[in-house]
Amino acid sequence: MTTPMFTVYTLAKLYGVKGDISSIARQGSGSACRSVLGGFVRWHKGCDPTGLDSVAQQIVPASHWPQLRILILVVNDRQKKISSTLGMQQSVKTSELLKYRVSHILPHRVDSIIKAIKERNFEMFAELTMKDSNQFHAMCLDTYPPALYMNDMSHSIVHLVHLLNSEKGRTKVAYTFDAGSNACLYLLESDVSAVLSAINHVFPPANDSVEYLRGLPVNIDPLDKKVAESLAMKPYEPGSLKFIIHTQLGEGPQVVQDLDQHLLTPAGDPKFLTPRHDN
Amino acid sequence: MTTPMFTVYTLAKLYGVKGDISSIARQGSGSACRSVLGGFVRWHKGCDPTGLDSVAQQIVPASHWPQLRILILVVNDRQKKISSTLGMQQSVKTSELLKYRVSHILPHRVDSIIKAIKERNFEMFAELTMKDSNQFHAMCLDTYPPALYMNDMSHSIVHLVHLLNSEKGRTKVAYTFDAGSNACLYLLESDVSAVLSAINHVFPPANDSVEYLRGLPVNIDPLDKKVAESLAMKPYEPGSLKFIIHTQLGEGPQVVQDLDQHLLTPAGDPKFLTPRHDN
Repeated sequence: MTTPMFTVYTLAKLYGVKGDISSIARQGSGSACRSVLGGFVRWHKGCDPTGLDSVAQQIVPASHWPQLRILILVVNDRQKKISSTLGMQQSVKTSELLKYRVSHILPHRVDSIIKAIKERNFEMFAELTMKDSNQFHAMCLDTYPPALYMNDMSHSIVHLVHLLNSEKGRTKVAYTFDAGSNACLYLLESDVSAVLSAINHVFPPANDSVEYLRGLPVNIDPLDKKVAESLAMKPYEPGSLKFIIHTQLGEGPQVVQDLDQHLLTPAGDPKFLTPRHDN
Repeated sequence: MTTPMFTVYTLAKLYGVKGDISSIARQGSGSACRSVLGGFVRWHKGCDPTGLDSVAQQIVPASHWPQLRILILVVNDRQKKISSTLGMQQSVKTSELLKYRVSHILPHRVDSIIKAIKERNFEMFAELTMKDSNQFHAMCLDTYPPALYMNDMSHSIVHLVHLLNSEKGRTKVAYTFDAGSNACLYLLESDVSAVLSAINHVFPPANDSVEYLRGLPVNIDPLDKKVAESLAMKPYEPGSLKFIIHTQLGEGPQVVQDLDQHLLTPAGDPKFLTPRHDN
């Protein structure tokens, strides 16, 4: 959800614009054009120099896969962020591997992940998601000078996910990282409690962390002693992760008719003022 | 310099073996076959399944480029090391990008770096070295599960090198990382003092570090205040680096005739006992 997306969606509704507004949102940003639709979305790169055919298309609505859950692991970060637009422009200029990825690897991979989503094949979806996240960050490293987004904590999360998946020989959780160090984990509702137990064991909250887990409520049991011993990963200092958001797929922007759900008062003032976070 | 290399070299000398001993050392390890020769060496991958044609060949002896210096920045590391042999076997199995790198990128790159070395073209040599180190680690990240060798400190060293090179618009120092987090920097003798000043400013030694800089002696002035301010990189905690080795290209293993240079007494006992380091 981005500011350009909200602006385009709101103006389109206000003026009664019909049809595809994704190409208008694309003028604002890539994430804006993806966010005007809900569920799983494919962003077509297009070939028109004006960018007008660089639009998003819904693959399935959120209701297609109601069991899917998302955990956002927000990481403490010392590094200065590189703008994802600048980083990608530099990759296009300097990474020889990027050309090969775009022409030879991505077309097949996009078809496969659409198939996995349509069939709700979690293991296939998870493996493709992780491989593609790794390859995206490999491209960033092959850029000159290299663009670095993941840090040691991000890689520790990757390591934990592979340990959890190999533990029972079943891919039950997947990671993906965009142009930043925070992890986005995909998993099924039935695995949320067990995976969060393991995350809380390895990355315990800081003692003063009043709201470590945000979003959808979930019961977390302490990690079973035997599982903890077999995990082969020592717990980190409390507070190594800032906080965790537990959420699910959304249906995209909506016109809210119920006044109680509005974020603004009828006078246009915000109803809630929450403390600002760094991330 | 590796144990298999020393064993092969010593036995070859003892039994008067003539000719190429690199292919014998290759049976021990890749670094062994490279280390039986001095200066710059090319390791041919070969195509014989027995590995007998996987040998090293000297490009130039160390005396070809006497101005070249090497700084090894030894990094504190929490992560468990992945064996480079296991990691590479996994990359060959799972990384689609590796196939493209081997078939389409490396042949031209090897020719270019040999040319740069023969012509003592430092800027060309440095840029190719950095790009190839980045691409090697990109391959490791494209491996499934990813093989991680560099850590946050390694990437901070990369960042510092690019800052130093962009500062005066001249590539005066290059980094390369093998299957570990320690940096190997190449630079010319005339730049050693200034580069070490910047390294000491950003990565100050721990207060109790008695021998932070080892190897060839060099005078280091504190970093000029103006340069420090323009560097756009805050100093790290003292002791973030373990220590630094300042060295140069070697001529490979030698038969030492001078008894004073022997490491062992005539009875075969070690002359020096130095404290053991973790790295």
